Amino acid sequence: MFAPAYLDHNATTPVLPAALDAMLPFFAQHYGNASSRHEYGRAARKAVDTAREQVAAALGAHPTEVVFTSGGSEANNLFLKGAAATMKPGVIAVSAVEHPCVRQPALELARQGWTLREVAVDADGRIDVADYARALEATPRLVSVMLANNETGTLLDVPTLAEAAKHTRGWFHTDAVQAFGKVGLDFRALNASGVHALTVSAHKIGGPKGAGALVLDKRVELRPLISGGGHERGLRSGTENVPAIVGFGVAAEQAASRRTEHAARLRGLREALEQGLIQQGATIFAAAAERLPNTVYFGFPNLDGETLVAKLDRAGFAVASGAACSSANPEPSHVLLAMGVAPELARGAVRASLAPETADPVIGQFLAALAETLRQLRGLTALAA
Amino acid sequence: MFAPAYLDHNATTPVLPAALDAMLPFFAQHYGNASSRHEYGRAARKAVDTAREQVAAALGAHPTEVVFTSGGSEANNLFLKGAAATMKPGVIAVSAVEHPCVRQPALELARQGWTLREVAVDADGRIDVADYARALEATPRLVSVMLANNETGTLLDVPTLAEAAKHTRGWFHTDAVQAFGKVGLDFRALNASGVHALTVSAHKIGGPKGAGALVLDKRVELRPLISGGGHERGLRSGTENVPAIVGFGVAAEQAASRRTEHAARLRGLREALEQGLIQQGATIFAAAAERLPNTVYFGFPNLDGETLVAKLDRAGFAVASGAACSSANPEPSHVLLAMGVAPELARGAVRASLAPETADPVIGQFLAALAETLRQLRGLTALAA
Repeated sequence: MFAPAYLDHNATTPVLPAALDAMLPFFAQHYGNASSRHEYGRAARKAVDTAREQVAAALGAHPTEVVFTSGGSEANNLFLKGAAATMKPGVIAVSAVEHPCVRQPALELARQGWTLREVAVDADGRIDVADYARALEATPRLVSVMLANNETGTLLDVPTLAEAAKHTRGWFHTDAVQAFGKVGLDFRALNASGVHALTVSAHKIGGPKGAGALVLDKRVELRPLISGGGHERGLRSGTENVPAIVGFGVAAEQAASRRTEHAARLRGLREALEQGLIQQGATIFAAAAERLPNTVYFGFPNLDGETLVAKLDRAGFAVASGAACSSANPEPSHVLLAMGVAPELARGAVRASLAPETADPVIGQFLAALAETLRQLRGLTALAA
Repeated sequence: MFAPAYLDHNATTPVLPAALDAMLPFFAQHYGNASSRHEYGRAARKAVDTAREQVAAALGAHPTEVVFTSGGSEANNLFLKGAAATMKPGVIAVSAVEHPCVRQPALELARQGWTLREVAVDADGRIDVADYARALEATPRLVSVMLANNETGTLLDVPTLAEAAKHTRGWFHTDAVQAFGKVGLDFRALNASGVHALTVSAHKIGGPKGAGALVLDKRVELRPLISGGGHERGLRSGTENVPAIVGFGVAAEQAASRRTEHAARLRGLREALEQGLIQQGATIFAAAAERLPNTVYFGFPNLDGETLVAKLDRAGFAVASGAACSSANPEPSHVLLAMGVAPELARGAVRASLAPETADPVIGQFLAALAETLRQLRGLTALAA
């Protein structure tokens, strides 16, 4: 089989061998429903308990604070809609660079009588501190600011932002889907800073699709999105996805234990990639910000990102244009527009997101393929002119 | 490993070998995000498309009517809460024997201004036609009646009930989680009878946990529970759980193609089991109703179901007491109480749910183990008296 080099790890990751090995017995051998009161059920329950401990330990949380969901989108929706459902409509503040699964629930709340306050970011995708201070003056009941942006990789200073919001006595949530495994996360410390809830997803860290978690300060009252049998302390009903949760646990453990080692290696790869890109005339987005060690978001003026991604795909390299998680969308990235990037340049955005498994030579090969692709595209442009 | 005989297939099923084989390449080889625009993404999208066609074909639906969810609980919640969110509060009618993931959303709607009308059932768990007619007089905007009950296996006459509700011009939903694979399902025919939405789940038919679907008449307007990237026609955002969806597709295909053959075999096993149970003095619940071919729900007076299940588990047989999908609940089954079963007898309820894979000799072995267990328990009771 033709296997292109995969440089799209912010979109999803292959399941780690150790995670898959741990999952396999739970499909057709220990296949019980974790709520069943027999041998099969107890084996499933024990596996879910172990995974809950692993995820909690990897995040510096207590196992009872971990609410398993089907993934990050569900966890973000559960927090925002679930908390809002217990309150009278008020102000909700979210950053201008959130993932659609935070932006859309916030927009829905706005249609239900909430006041949505989008907080501006600077040219590198960091929160505009003055605008954030103004947003807090409206005493938001809910604040959601991501820890790391999925497109640019920009790290947002969530502990400081949460501290600043403490006096509002609202709930502060952070989408940590992209941060998990790439930067250190400690829910206990974040909680002390004023973070009440945090979202993570298994398939971004070498776990399987179909599992995620909302880590939740128990003082937060939530209405479930999915009610029924009362699973997950009544916050998320539905038969537990045992194999996926088991894989999530193993992946979380590895993500935490190997993070420092991985980050050092990723930074080296990213550095080499960015140097090569700059030599080819690329703009690196959010270049001045502290960023995820694996993410490079770049563009060339007057070159369409979609076209570049398609050409690179044929050349054997899987990268993303704009946010890879959302469906077909001809609009330029809302993240780049919020950063003040001109729409022409934003339309050219391409994201390469690396993994510790990315082999060293791939960077050079990718840069060579890109150079050749640019030559072809510019030749065509010159011909057409 | 000690592997007890598994007689709890209404709680969950082992993943079929063909389904697991089909899933495996999507964990660490074709692991792309189905929204990505490269080779990995296209392979994932193609697999999801194929599975959607398989699930649709197995249910007599069009692929565009299939909305994938994380499971049955999510699909039921999506329909009830999603449809209600587009309407002014009105009357919602559900049967008194629905699964908690229909009952609880209905109760939540009742707290939000809806009027909840529970429709009575007869002594065998079938809808009380006179009470249903009275419920329709209130012109419910939403009606939900399951096709087959998870505890008793009673089949409810959904086509007739939906026809009778047509004049109300509300939406009629049916939870087909237990019916799928055990009785014939044809969404086109059901839709013609007035059924607008139908819920199914993968892990009840030999597919994996973590996938389900809401089959939906496109005239029904729904608000998503999980919003974000706009997946599943905007009705269910979140990265598609590709391996689980692939396994669901294969399991659905097998469930439909082998259903008649399986049902005949299951009926034979059920008949043998019921004969043996009656000889031991058991009451068979819903005995007079047309029921799922695999389900036997029974009880003995003055014997606790939980105790019986625990004893049988130690003897090597996995069965359920009451509804196995819900969490610890000391209350007797709401299904049996709705049928007018006395609480003392309802507390003794035990469910055995068979699969085509259940070996013939297991029935006799189970009956022998049950006889021995009853002897022990009655001995203890006699001693204590």
